[in-house]
Amino acid sequence: MALILHVRTAREQWWQAHLQSLLPEIECRLWSQPGNLNDIRYAVVWAPPAGGLRQFKNLQFIVSIGAGIDHVLADPQLPMDVPIIRTTGAQMTQRMREYVCLHVLRLHRGLDSQIRAQSSRQWHNVISPSADQRTVGVMGLGKLGAAAAATLVELGFRVRGWARSPHDQHGVYCFSGADGLADFLSQCEILVCMLPLTAETDSILNRQLFEWLPTGAHLINVGRGEHLHEDDLLAALATGQLGSATLDVFRQEPLPANHPFWVHPAITITPHIASMIDPETGGQEIARNLQNFVAGQPVADLVDARRGY
Amino acid sequence: MALILHVRTAREQWWQAHLQSLLPEIECRLWSQPGNLNDIRYAVVWAPPAGGLRQFKNLQFIVSIGAGIDHVLADPQLPMDVPIIRTTGAQMTQRMREYVCLHVLRLHRGLDSQIRAQSSRQWHNVISPSADQRTVGVMGLGKLGAAAAATLVELGFRVRGWARSPHDQHGVYCFSGADGLADFLSQCEILVCMLPLTAETDSILNRQLFEWLPTGAHLINVGRGEHLHEDDLLAALATGQLGSATLDVFRQEPLPANHPFWVHPAITITPHIASMIDPETGGQEIARNLQNFVAGQPVADLVDARRGY
Repeated sequence: MALILHVRTAREQWWQAHLQSLLPEIECRLWSQPGNLNDIRYAVVWAPPAGGLRQFKNLQFIVSIGAGIDHVLADPQLPMDVPIIRTTGAQMTQRMREYVCLHVLRLHRGLDSQIRAQSSRQWHNVISPSADQRTVGVMGLGKLGAAAAATLVELGFRVRGWARSPHDQHGVYCFSGADGLADFLSQCEILVCMLPLTAETDSILNRQLFEWLPTGAHLINVGRGEHLHEDDLLAALATGQLGSATLDVFRQEPLPANHPFWVHPAITITPHIASMIDPETGGQEIARNLQNFVAGQPVADLVDARRGY
Repeated sequence: MALILHVRTAREQWWQAHLQSLLPEIECRLWSQPGNLNDIRYAVVWAPPAGGLRQFKNLQFIVSIGAGIDHVLADPQLPMDVPIIRTTGAQMTQRMREYVCLHVLRLHRGLDSQIRAQSSRQWHNVISPSADQRTVGVMGLGKLGAAAAATLVELGFRVRGWARSPHDQHGVYCFSGADGLADFLSQCEILVCMLPLTAETDSILNRQLFEWLPTGAHLINVGRGEHLHEDDLLAALATGQLGSATLDVFRQEPLPANHPFWVHPAITITPHIASMIDPETGGQEIARNLQNFVAGQPVADLVDARRGY
């Protein structure tokens, strides 16, 4: 009985040793040294190569190292009858809350212009609105989105939420479905994308959506790079329809050095760090989910591959 | 029956009209046009000139436009028997929570180095600790300090508090008095000064205090410029004892253009905006406190001039 591991090469030795120590009853193998393919019952993966997982005929389930499973579903030959477990630990939720609050507050309080004022020694004490006069919209009200929205409510913001299906959350004015999108967006001065990536949400951050926002709205994308139509973003920034974009995820990661986003004055780039899994606690979360699934216990993070999240 | 107003000249017409509309029964006069000095019963002031208030022989109380009263007590000829009411509205507390959380999160998540990385097109995704592994210390547990500490607890940080007298606050590990200061500081990776300015707290942010902090700790000062020993700060940054300083208040404001803080790579300057009073709501707060005091109702913001806050 063995587990196969696919992570970035630089970290694979560490992951192997860590998971092995947490799961002594299972042999943890690296993707490059799979041994007998029929031994493999479990796969723990980030972005496995296309066609890779179907080699394992006895695969019982796949663990996605991350809250999204799009990087697994991207494999056109994925065995669709194998269950997928995603990874969302308390620390992942915590880090996402931190990132979203940091950047919402940064935009709300105009930190970037204060930093520029310092560089030219300007004392320019404008009074910005307080959070109860600022509307923030959160797209996606899953585990991470709901936690971020709740924290923004605690901080005092007016918070709106949007999801595919109807939600009800204390302090959050909720909208749902394609029919509710324009209404939701109409008041969002700061918009945070926390959606799962599916066929429906691919390129959802596009020209039409930007036009539904108030002029000068700010975008924060912590979902996936594929949510964003990059040319539409550049066009909306050029006309001023969008005031700025803060992007943590990109269609190609690392973002290529010649990408125009790097030097755009209204784009802030962070390198997919909003809610990285700390390998230490992430490994513990993965081991716990895996053991629960094997033992027939409920696993909250079991996902529906056909729905896509 | 008249009120005298001392605010910055650029805003005095607005303040006069605003307070007059809220207090129709009282004549609101500008400092430059006081009329008969014996008419003046109330003074609403920011940093009144030395010797100014003692001219008004019938003064019943002084309203400080701000949470601190140090700018009133700075007058060596201040009539000490006249009560002082400070101004701390809900919006002031709200803005302070926003500022403190923004800058604590900014330091916690290393935003400055991410901005530098973007300017050199570097994709550098380090994993920072999550907030539950980060200790933040709040000095001063008055109305604003307690609110900021509570919000930091909500955000997930380990929070310590220090005040002159013992306090008890949910989720905050409280220390007090000169005896408790070194213990309090010993774990504070990020230290936020929210103290009132008194003879005891003048220059409290000095070399000894910095040495009690863990090496590389970050300082945020939203108290008063006089809390900070400026030369000791520069020395502590030079040795690395302090990692950075984020300063919203200064001994001289606006900060003079030739001040070394402007161009120091480890100092972030904001122009006394952490919790400015929005004149609209600040005026309402002042009018309410004034009317309550006149009517003999309790005024929470009545301060003890001899204690200094």
